Amino acid sequence: MNEHIVKSFEEELNSLTADVARMGGLAEAQIIDAVSSVTRRDATLAEAVVGDIERRSIRLIALRQPMALDLRRTVAAMKISSNLERCGDLARNIAKRALILTGSEPITPLTRSVGRMGKLVASRLKDVLDAYTTSDPERAANVWRRDDEIDEHYNSLFRELLTYMMGDPRTITPGAHLLFIAKNLERIGDHATNIAEIVQFEVTGDDIPVSRPKGETLSS
Amino acid sequence: MNEHIVKSFEEELNSLTADVARMGGLAEAQIIDAVSSVTRRDATLAEAVVGDIERRSIRLIALRQPMALDLRRTVAAMKISSNLERCGDLARNIAKRALILTGSEPITPLTRSVGRMGKLVASRLKDVLDAYTTSDPERAANVWRRDDEIDEHYNSLFRELLTYMMGDPRTITPGAHLLFIAKNLERIGDHATNIAEIVQFEVTGDDIPVSRPKGETLSS
Repeated sequence: MNEHIVKSFEEELNSLTADVARMGGLAEAQIIDAVSSVTRRDATLAEAVVGDIERRSIRLIALRQPMALDLRRTVAAMKISSNLERCGDLARNIAKRALILTGSEPITPLTRSVGRMGKLVASRLKDVLDAYTTSDPERAANVWRRDDEIDEHYNSLFRELLTYMMGDPRTITPGAHLLFIAKNLERIGDHATNIAEIVQFEVTGDDIPVSRPKGETLSS
Repeated sequence: MNEHIVKSFEEELNSLTADVARMGGLAEAQIIDAVSSVTRRDATLAEAVVGDIERRSIRLIALRQPMALDLRRTVAAMKISSNLERCGDLARNIAKRALILTGSEPITPLTRSVGRMGKLVASRLKDVLDAYTTSDPERAANVWRRDDEIDEHYNSLFRELLTYMMGDPRTITPGAHLLFIAKNLERIGDHATNIAEIVQFEVTGDDIPVSRPKGETLSS
């Protein structure tokens, strides 16, 4: 076979990893934009990319029969892209709700608190994508361990929002949208944690030993 | 090789499909139990099964290099089991919230409305799993087309719940949990729609032509 026509397995795998990282950058930007509510980026692009990554991963597995690390890298690319696709959906949903919020009673202190949570979540996603591109399981484990900070943020926001809504019925509708925005951010945090587990497995072949630090929140 | 030791590809694939169907039955039962709020089934089982299905699917792809329909069947098993795993998580979350609700102000008419939505969603999941086990793309497409009924149910529940919460501040906390329960049911409906798309692709090799009937709701 002509090596100018047939790409090497290593090249194909590297191009897959680069595409996942690019998709990650896109998801990150969507989250930051959504949270600063100035958005309406096109999520269709992210959806097209994930479909393509999946097809290429499956083709690689079927035709090249990778073993061990190569197989883990291929499967990781496929799974991370699917997590990133959902992050993009969640960011898009936040942007839609942010648009609705502009028409209702402002709840300034809580909106700020949601903004802080958004920055925290976006930075965790950035960290875990850096861990992915640098194949750094320690950095991934660090994101994974700190998921409870996001959960605590969400739990306290949930309580504050309900208190606000009880105090002033005009804030019930915007409050409900802020509840869902906070929940979407928490779910993006869960995807960052999933990605951390995938990176850990990809690099070391082992699962993170203890089960994920969730359960205290109503995470779904 | 000894054929009593090495299972045929067809046998492995059938056992994979049977396991996905079994997992589907479990998810269905979890949803029904969660909605009738008498639950606390063990979701750990479902999680163990999905990990196993994924490993076996990837092994099948890597070692047997299936093409065309066989490849689509293997990938479908893996993707459907991942959708079912999330349905199980959502059902478990509904059950937790149902438990919290027993301690608050009852909102009887809306709780009933959530119950009806739960039955609708469970029946759609049942339909699409039947479509999967019988390889019936028409039945799958039917579930897919009717996703907007679930969305409409959710949208009207969202409005009713907010109205209720505005009228009586004591219902704000249980109302917020019911909002999330309704949202979780809507998301289970989305997973049923995803599974419908996967069945369609598995059987025919084609995507459902038009894009999914969503966008009107704030679906994430």
